[in-house]
Amino acid sequence: MAASVDVGIGLLGYGTVGSAVSRLLAESADEIERATGHRLRVVRALVRDPAKERPFPADEGVLTTDFEALRGDPGVHVVAEVMGGVSPAGDYVRELLRAGKPVVSANKQLIARDGADLFATASAAGVQLRFEASVCAAIPVIKVLRESLVVSNVHRVLGIVNGTTNFMLSRMERGGTYAEALAEAQELGYAEADPTDDVSGADAAAKMAILATVAFGSRVRFEDVERRGIEELEPAHVSAAAELGMVVRLVGIATLVDDAVDVRVQPAFVERSHPLASVDGAFNAVMLQGDAIREITLEGPGAGGIETASAVVADLVSVVGTSGTGFLQNDACWRELVRLPSSDWASPFYAHLEVSDRPGVLAHAASRLAAHDVSVAQLVQRLDEGAATLELVLHRAPLGNVSAALREIAAFPEVLRAPFFLPVIAERTL
Amino acid sequence: MAASVDVGIGLLGYGTVGSAVSRLLAESADEIERATGHRLRVVRALVRDPAKERPFPADEGVLTTDFEALRGDPGVHVVAEVMGGVSPAGDYVRELLRAGKPVVSANKQLIARDGADLFATASAAGVQLRFEASVCAAIPVIKVLRESLVVSNVHRVLGIVNGTTNFMLSRMERGGTYAEALAEAQELGYAEADPTDDVSGADAAAKMAILATVAFGSRVRFEDVERRGIEELEPAHVSAAAELGMVVRLVGIATLVDDAVDVRVQPAFVERSHPLASVDGAFNAVMLQGDAIREITLEGPGAGGIETASAVVADLVSVVGTSGTGFLQNDACWRELVRLPSSDWASPFYAHLEVSDRPGVLAHAASRLAAHDVSVAQLVQRLDEGAATLELVLHRAPLGNVSAALREIAAFPEVLRAPFFLPVIAERTL
Repeated sequence: MAASVDVGIGLLGYGTVGSAVSRLLAESADEIERATGHRLRVVRALVRDPAKERPFPADEGVLTTDFEALRGDPGVHVVAEVMGGVSPAGDYVRELLRAGKPVVSANKQLIARDGADLFATASAAGVQLRFEASVCAAIPVIKVLRESLVVSNVHRVLGIVNGTTNFMLSRMERGGTYAEALAEAQELGYAEADPTDDVSGADAAAKMAILATVAFGSRVRFEDVERRGIEELEPAHVSAAAELGMVVRLVGIATLVDDAVDVRVQPAFVERSHPLASVDGAFNAVMLQGDAIREITLEGPGAGGIETASAVVADLVSVVGTSGTGFLQNDACWRELVRLPSSDWASPFYAHLEVSDRPGVLAHAASRLAAHDVSVAQLVQRLDEGAATLELVLHRAPLGNVSAALREIAAFPEVLRAPFFLPVIAERTL
Repeated sequence: MAASVDVGIGLLGYGTVGSAVSRLLAESADEIERATGHRLRVVRALVRDPAKERPFPADEGVLTTDFEALRGDPGVHVVAEVMGGVSPAGDYVRELLRAGKPVVSANKQLIARDGADLFATASAAGVQLRFEASVCAAIPVIKVLRESLVVSNVHRVLGIVNGTTNFMLSRMERGGTYAEALAEAQELGYAEADPTDDVSGADAAAKMAILATVAFGSRVRFEDVERRGIEELEPAHVSAAAELGMVVRLVGIATLVDDAVDVRVQPAFVERSHPLASVDGAFNAVMLQGDAIREITLEGPGAGGIETASAVVADLVSVVGTSGTGFLQNDACWRELVRLPSSDWASPFYAHLEVSDRPGVLAHAASRLAAHDVSVAQLVQRLDEGAATLELVLHRAPLGNVSAALREIAAFPEVLRAPFFLPVIAERTL
């Protein structure tokens, strides 16, 4: 075993995750030394209020309110950013990289928004910036993508990357409205008092931006992700899915088609036999499809202090273990791919129509779909006092074609309500 | 980016996997250079018959029948062992390590049987021995365990690590005998003409030995794995499972309890809602349970030439990328743990009894179970012309207690047939 050398760790933030990082480094010092030949120790942590009580208190003299004390400390060799927020975290990270200190970040909003600039800064300074903990906590999807699937040409990433909405939608399946599911998620601590970030898909979009960037080697920013939240979902949608043998889930879908990229987060109907349908409650799962590997799925807790800290520590270990090599020290991006026009993105779809029960409506609707090359895989018609509802599962078709056909159908006088439609995630492409 | 340096790769074997490794290295040279700063190329490959036709032919002058030509070639910097078999592969690997050449092996039988000696040789020579491809092909479970979960204290590994038996058991669920399922697996190329290695659990036992070794940091040899195959399974067992909301699967279970290790491969009843129950056909899945991570599951294709080659290449990339550091160059084993006495291994169980329908049998059986502290979670009794079958789901109890109780019950004059029992894998411990 290599000689023990102390590696000083700096923390930006010492809250739930920071305390857990500190605890894991202390408790697992032997494991880490076995892997890296080094002993890691938190020597400096930037906080706002040193007097605050913390789950795992820092050693005497570690906490500071002065960023310069951290940046200028030659005993700080690697820094973990666990403070969250885009500002001032971004400025701190940039300054640390410029000062030659490798950084590990758990901050998805920062990486998804300022990634390009941060990685350029890291490259220029010749130091590492790692970000495993920024996506799905302890699930090691970044390492797997960058190191294990380096030759796999991943062309599709499917993910359930937000535990809050996954819990809520699983909950609605067992009965209950959106509001009830949200209240229960809040009670159990799965949802914040202000749940916007989760239910709007913003949290998932930041994660999908990072995953797509790494998977496809081309920068995808938060703003590049098309997104639709779960706020409009009704129990009727959930039961319509159930009748078709599906469940409703907030799904992230990143696709690489002919060197064009599409990344979206939106509710989808997922076939019950699909691995993503059985992802439990607040868990996350990411499915990676590529040439050499066919399909690899990683599933686990996508949030939590200790879970996130475990990924931060793994990144620290990797930084320390590979320092001095050129291994993966560059930006994961190496090419600039165009965005696929949204209308060209193809998928099977589910559509719900409400029409007055007059003869010929179905034939008329079917002819509009056919006119746009959209074919029907499954149809359920239900009559209810002069009105009919049509549940359609449509074969894989470009979003533009499906939208155009449904727009034309919506203009029929017999159509009582704007059609509702969502993509379908099928085990085998419909 | 670091300057390009040619790294010469040697191959032991150039069959399906070797050809695929050669192809991936050639086709993904740019990706690999981006990750490592180096260009990798197959410069020498040991084969028995250079004239044989190969899916991806080697360059002129690469194939050789002379091991010395590979070992002595200073242009061979890293070697991938993709020839299979314990001998002579093991001797070759040892000699290469001694010659200072890092080795990547896809050979589970070799690693599971000769691991201790091979890793000692690698350590003494100061070179790496990696073995990602030896377990579950492209699923990067070794890297995840060693690098991402370094501080997670993994205490349980559950796996479906043999695709052949998983396919067969999934097949039996949809009706059909063991023989029919085997014939279909052979037809589709999932099972060999001689399926012994798969159906006896030997293949899965080698993989579980390697996984347990890495997860617990203590050597588990192939011989240390308790194992039972699927040959004795009948359609009646499969339908009994179905009635209880379960499926029958060949499961690998590695457990660390109070610094004692138990590793076993055997058929088990798996609750349908458990993630392992939905692992599709010939796919593999490994579930890792630990302190910091709770539970992470990796699923994907567990076999196949290109899938295995993808893991070999990932290992080559890691070797090249981390060479010159001390990172993970040591044996994953660092302690010697005792084996848990088999009778102490605890689990929920399923048991099947056939008794003559005389009053008091049930009470008598229940009292024997209670006498051994085994309690009944679920009971289904079925009457059939004077005989009764009892299907029991037993709460978690030590194997020794359950065996003892069932042995006593088997001695009842009313019991018509030796009781049949298997562990139950439950989402929540029964």
